Amino acid sequence: MSTAFSPSSLNPSVLNVQYAVRGPLAIRAEEYRSRIKKDPHGHGLPFDQVVTANIGNPQQAGLDQKPLTFGRQIAALLEYPPLMDSGKSLFPPDVIQRARELYAEIGSIGAYSQSQGVPFIRQNVAKFIHTRDGYPSNPSDIFLTAGASAGVSLIINMLIASPSTGILIPIPQYPLYTAALAQHKGVPIPYYLDESNGWSTDPQDIEMAIAKASGQGTQVKALVIINPGNPTGAVLRSSTMQDVLRVCERHNLVLLADEVYQSNIHDPAQPFVSFKKVLRASNSPVPLVSFHSISKGVTGECGRRGGYFELVNVPEETKALVYKMLSVGLCPPLGGQVGVDCLVRPPIPGEYSYPLWKEETDAIHSALASRTHIIATRLDALPGVSCVAAPGAMYLFPQLQLPDAAIEAAKVAGHEPDEFYTLELLDQTGICAVPGSGFGQKEGEAHFRLTCLSAGVEEYIGKLETFQRSFWKKYGGELAKA
Amino acid sequence: MSTAFSPSSLNPSVLNVQYAVRGPLAIRAEEYRSRIKKDPHGHGLPFDQVVTANIGNPQQAGLDQKPLTFGRQIAALLEYPPLMDSGKSLFPPDVIQRARELYAEIGSIGAYSQSQGVPFIRQNVAKFIHTRDGYPSNPSDIFLTAGASAGVSLIINMLIASPSTGILIPIPQYPLYTAALAQHKGVPIPYYLDESNGWSTDPQDIEMAIAKASGQGTQVKALVIINPGNPTGAVLRSSTMQDVLRVCERHNLVLLADEVYQSNIHDPAQPFVSFKKVLRASNSPVPLVSFHSISKGVTGECGRRGGYFELVNVPEETKALVYKMLSVGLCPPLGGQVGVDCLVRPPIPGEYSYPLWKEETDAIHSALASRTHIIATRLDALPGVSCVAAPGAMYLFPQLQLPDAAIEAAKVAGHEPDEFYTLELLDQTGICAVPGSGFGQKEGEAHFRLTCLSAGVEEYIGKLETFQRSFWKKYGGELAKA
Repeated sequence: MSTAFSPSSLNPSVLNVQYAVRGPLAIRAEEYRSRIKKDPHGHGLPFDQVVTANIGNPQQAGLDQKPLTFGRQIAALLEYPPLMDSGKSLFPPDVIQRARELYAEIGSIGAYSQSQGVPFIRQNVAKFIHTRDGYPSNPSDIFLTAGASAGVSLIINMLIASPSTGILIPIPQYPLYTAALAQHKGVPIPYYLDESNGWSTDPQDIEMAIAKASGQGTQVKALVIINPGNPTGAVLRSSTMQDVLRVCERHNLVLLADEVYQSNIHDPAQPFVSFKKVLRASNSPVPLVSFHSISKGVTGECGRRGGYFELVNVPEETKALVYKMLSVGLCPPLGGQVGVDCLVRPPIPGEYSYPLWKEETDAIHSALASRTHIIATRLDALPGVSCVAAPGAMYLFPQLQLPDAAIEAAKVAGHEPDEFYTLELLDQTGICAVPGSGFGQKEGEAHFRLTCLSAGVEEYIGKLETFQRSFWKKYGGELAKA
Repeated sequence: MSTAFSPSSLNPSVLNVQYAVRGPLAIRAEEYRSRIKKDPHGHGLPFDQVVTANIGNPQQAGLDQKPLTFGRQIAALLEYPPLMDSGKSLFPPDVIQRARELYAEIGSIGAYSQSQGVPFIRQNVAKFIHTRDGYPSNPSDIFLTAGASAGVSLIINMLIASPSTGILIPIPQYPLYTAALAQHKGVPIPYYLDESNGWSTDPQDIEMAIAKASGQGTQVKALVIINPGNPTGAVLRSSTMQDVLRVCERHNLVLLADEVYQSNIHDPAQPFVSFKKVLRASNSPVPLVSFHSISKGVTGECGRRGGYFELVNVPEETKALVYKMLSVGLCPPLGGQVGVDCLVRPPIPGEYSYPLWKEETDAIHSALASRTHIIATRLDALPGVSCVAAPGAMYLFPQLQLPDAAIEAAKVAGHEPDEFYTLELLDQTGICAVPGSGFGQKEGEAHFRLTCLSAGVEEYIGKLETFQRSFWKKYGGELAKA
């Protein structure tokens, strides 16, 4: 075989990219899944079902979340417009009306739209932001994207002016950020979230990280905040957000606010507040990119690939560059754009589709909140595990106390301790989680991230408990603790 | 405003990216479009409709191509699966059966799929390739993407190992290639297509380009071939393809074959042959990446963002890296993946949907072929224009002979001559084409690219003729020629 396309001849930054959420564990889980599918009775595995807990993919088979009827009905009509007439009896009147309105604005969803997204949908996004924050938003500052990830990756690519450009990222973080930094040859500058204080963000720690990085010659360019947190589930207070803006002002930073979990709030006492709102309230000049997505929240429409970002305090010339870069990729998928429209314009009281929409979304909110609470509480009660409660998002990030014998066994197997733990968990229970090292953690610590999306929470937590107790016993945890 | 996000502080390679297909002309055309929409009677423009001829976007409003019924019916059922029962009387039986089959394999199209694409759909792509070429294809070598562009951009990013890595691109070329090279900091190495010989590809010219680039210290890494050609419409002969493979073998190059127009063939005497087939027939070891898309051909489903690439003669370790990079973006849009399935598994004779599908696709094929022929012939007959006939794709790339006075007027206006011409064309007729400089051309030449997708070909070519005659007269072309 020719050597022209061998790994050693490729872009070295590609080799450096790491993305554990879909890493070796996920690949092994897929193998188990197809083994079970091929031979449901003779697969030889100690479980009959692989439980996907590695990725926030609410509509995946075996998980709990169904698509919202309203958005899917509209999508079906736009896919096949003759149904607006022939299927009149099968769809609610407000759905047909909405589909006709969108069709008049978009035309065929098989055509490219403007690279920035359909103007009408951007107007609706701007109205949604205005209503949410109480401050206006301009449709020309809204850029529709193929999920939030595509936008994050582009903005990071644009910000990295040289190999010494650094971007502050929380630890633990969603690994898209380190992956994008590796791909585009920038420097990740870690700041640490405080596990002992509900995974809170400490502006002082960010200041220290800036000082250290600057001292090492890194040009600190931007700050990433994930709120609600992934993988932590923490929700920021407004006062912290104000402090964060002051840090950005002091150091001339761009703020990248990953707010894709803004509607996954489990505790009314800790509401979501957008960075746009806090910024406008204090009249801050900080350039802000705020990301949102249809993949999370109660829509959970990951497969459509829809999302948007809003640019705030960004010069017109930079907006033109963003537009140009998006235009090379032509446009975000129209199915995702229509999904964004449904996200920002759900049915309202009085409309035909409202009661069903309310029932479906209430059920999703309460199921996720209750599952998150149950799993966190019972994990925290286990020997060798501590788990911070999560008031937001759809994950938990429990810490493991690993017995020395387990650490030794991991070393023998050639794995990091937390990777060893999650591999054992997968092999014995079929539950696919992600080791904490994929998100970052303090030296010597071990965590794992798991989603709280699985149907049948009793069976799920039961399996986790049984596994942890047996792991703990097998590697002498009881003795170690004694 | 903060300077943190000003253009001068950004990644300089972003500033270098150019993509004329959606450049200033397209932006001005959008402005005209919304001016007409806002005030249909008092817009003050010398035309009542903007004609999009800048981009291969067959389903755009005002153009001729309708979506294929079969694929849209399946898509509607997957968007809203209850329709498979409630809408039984509204859909053909084979459509419902196909939708049920896909639903059983995919589940909700709102869930992420495998990052490489749904396994079942990749199997169907592999069968399609096998049938097309007579050589087997392995589903594990197929990677579904959000249109061909996403795949091209990723592969180019991976191939550029250092700033001295170069990739051979045809001139004229689809500007995605130069844009991706600029973004990822590689060297574009031009080789010239021969306009006087039907825009043919000359392997000798590629050899010369390699020698010249190597002499300048560029590491020549890959060769891009677009077949059928964009913007030229040329179709490669097998013998030329064999010679191209020999060039790749001699210089250890990766071959990137952009084959997205493979079903847009207007002349049965010049059929499409895939590089995979020629490669297998000669048992060549050249690493090949072959791109295909649902945006072109008779599907024309640009807005879904669907496509795939096949890796041939590529090491397993490199495939794993490709998988990893795709996984950071999670997965291609499911709507696009379903579109790929319909592309590679159209209805066959005997199936209920076949007659309609055949009627629709025949009409698209023959309309495009006839429009392309009419426009090319009449453009070529105009004073100051010569136009090579296009046996494939959906564009023409006529050459302009510009009078000195026009070149002077362009200079005064601060534009390249071909840009000046297309701006005048837009301002006077509403037709939005793209100047040849956006695709590359020989020094001192002037071309423009226009699509052959417009409904009402007589009116369209009539406008072009009137404009060219008046332009030619205004700038003294008659005198120049005399």
